[in-house]
Amino acid sequence: MSLDIAAIRASAVRIAPYVKRTPVLTSDALDDACGGRLFFKCENLQAAGAFKARGAGNAVFSLTDAEAAHGVVTHSSGNHAAAVARAAGLRGVPAFIVMPHNAPQSKVRNVERYGGRITYCEPSLTVREQTCARLAAETGAALVHPFDDYRVMAGAGTATLELLEEVPDLDLVLCPVGGGGLLCGTAVAAKGAKPGVRVVGVEPEQASDVAQSFRAGRRISIAATPTIADGLRTNCTGEKNFPLIREHVDDVVTVSEDAIVAAMRALWENLKVVVEPSGAVPFAGVREGRVDARGKKIGVILTGGNVDLDSLLWMKK
Amino acid sequence: MSLDIAAIRASAVRIAPYVKRTPVLTSDALDDACGGRLFFKCENLQAAGAFKARGAGNAVFSLTDAEAAHGVVTHSSGNHAAAVARAAGLRGVPAFIVMPHNAPQSKVRNVERYGGRITYCEPSLTVREQTCARLAAETGAALVHPFDDYRVMAGAGTATLELLEEVPDLDLVLCPVGGGGLLCGTAVAAKGAKPGVRVVGVEPEQASDVAQSFRAGRRISIAATPTIADGLRTNCTGEKNFPLIREHVDDVVTVSEDAIVAAMRALWENLKVVVEPSGAVPFAGVREGRVDARGKKIGVILTGGNVDLDSLLWMKK
Repeated sequence: MSLDIAAIRASAVRIAPYVKRTPVLTSDALDDACGGRLFFKCENLQAAGAFKARGAGNAVFSLTDAEAAHGVVTHSSGNHAAAVARAAGLRGVPAFIVMPHNAPQSKVRNVERYGGRITYCEPSLTVREQTCARLAAETGAALVHPFDDYRVMAGAGTATLELLEEVPDLDLVLCPVGGGGLLCGTAVAAKGAKPGVRVVGVEPEQASDVAQSFRAGRRISIAATPTIADGLRTNCTGEKNFPLIREHVDDVVTVSEDAIVAAMRALWENLKVVVEPSGAVPFAGVREGRVDARGKKIGVILTGGNVDLDSLLWMKK
Repeated sequence: MSLDIAAIRASAVRIAPYVKRTPVLTSDALDDACGGRLFFKCENLQAAGAFKARGAGNAVFSLTDAEAAHGVVTHSSGNHAAAVARAAGLRGVPAFIVMPHNAPQSKVRNVERYGGRITYCEPSLTVREQTCARLAAETGAALVHPFDDYRVMAGAGTATLELLEEVPDLDLVLCPVGGGGLLCGTAVAAKGAKPGVRVVGVEPEQASDVAQSFRAGRRISIAATPTIADGLRTNCTGEKNFPLIREHVDDVVTVSEDAIVAAMRALWENLKVVVEPSGAVPFAGVREGRVDARGKKIGVILTGGNVDLDSLLWMKK
């Protein structure tokens, strides 16, 4: 099994009762500033505030009753955690959630809201995966990996199917890169639905494992970094993800922390939507000139909107 | 001439090239909290960040070439000003804008962005109207009153037409009340498109001239007040508005300043959209129990999203 457009289309049907069809927003001011036309797929307006509802929903509802009987388990810095908790709740099974202790409070509250049972751990992928494996062994819960899972990638790709239905003549699709689940789903969906469209991933400079791996032609693991894009702190892409990225993705570029904050603020101010730092990363790539937008029609996945409204980043500056 | 559903439908056709069809958003968490189902018509995502693009667009594009030749003039605390400047720019004529000196900076910038020529004045309706009349006499510009104008009301009503197309079985539609332009447009559109639907206006306690007028059966003018809902500080509804309000509106209720701030924050947190204080007023009515939402399907017009992101209201508390 791998990931193809048929799996993404099947996923769209499977998750339809459990996710929202999110709007695509535009802004003349942002278009004028970059010289292109930007179409923002607002997954920050998705159920539980992030695109993760798609992949988690597809994974949880792909399980047989026997597989789902003892619940599901995952590790996540936040949005995938809440999405798995929500999907498990809709299916009526427990969700065991491993979260790094530095996950934002707003994301912890989201997991709690959906009834997820949280276990905290050190913020490294190794410790997260070990804790997850231990919980799976103890409970019999089925693992729903946040990115190294074809079902999760297929669900994530459904956002791009919808985007291309609404704006069929895109030249380029941009998405943020953490572990690479969304990037794989986006690339396979985009190229399957519209051969010739380019797909570029955008990653924080401070968590640039996928950009480095893409250039090197092999998976590179980096040290954990404190990028403000808390959803993208993964330090190594997945075994299933990397071959798909090499095959289907055109480029992976990086952006600075300052660019992420400025992009986030510009999105709030012009699109009038709440976008979290990770979700602002692709637009930061446009704004900082890492992606040349001139004359192009560009789809941008705004991945999430879960932020702590009591401490806005630009107020700390 | 007055206002009827035919005028609103004609307005929808006239302004279609110049405004966005805004999405309708929902939130399970907000529904659970109020016991009803809320459908938010996101005019904060409208062009220039507010529903005002509709009324201003309809008024400016209703003018004959001769009437439009010397431009347009209006007075407004912000969103109508920017919308008139934008519509005038699209038509290729100048816009003379009278603004109270206490208008939020974000709204002043919006007017400047669209090329409006600003004259500042004292923040009372009388002074605003005098300044506007003087400018009209000096320039020959055509007046586009912010609310006491059938063309403006008709444009504003188009948001409710779209909302009812998307959610035809609403029991109730809520909108904020400043001068009453939106309230008239909303009520005539709602009752014309779906007889039997209720329409309730929600007004800040600190600017409750319309609620008082509605109860008294005559237009009551009140002293200027500093409600944080800067778009709703009008101290007397219009001559054209009041008879329409008496005929078509079911009730006008009021909300506290604290309720407005809490509602605004809840909308940002749950809907993931940026809503200004005035836009949060109807939901404040639900949240504070001034509107009984239990068991009902309620349309809520989120009127605008133009706020100063450097000074969020809940951080001052």
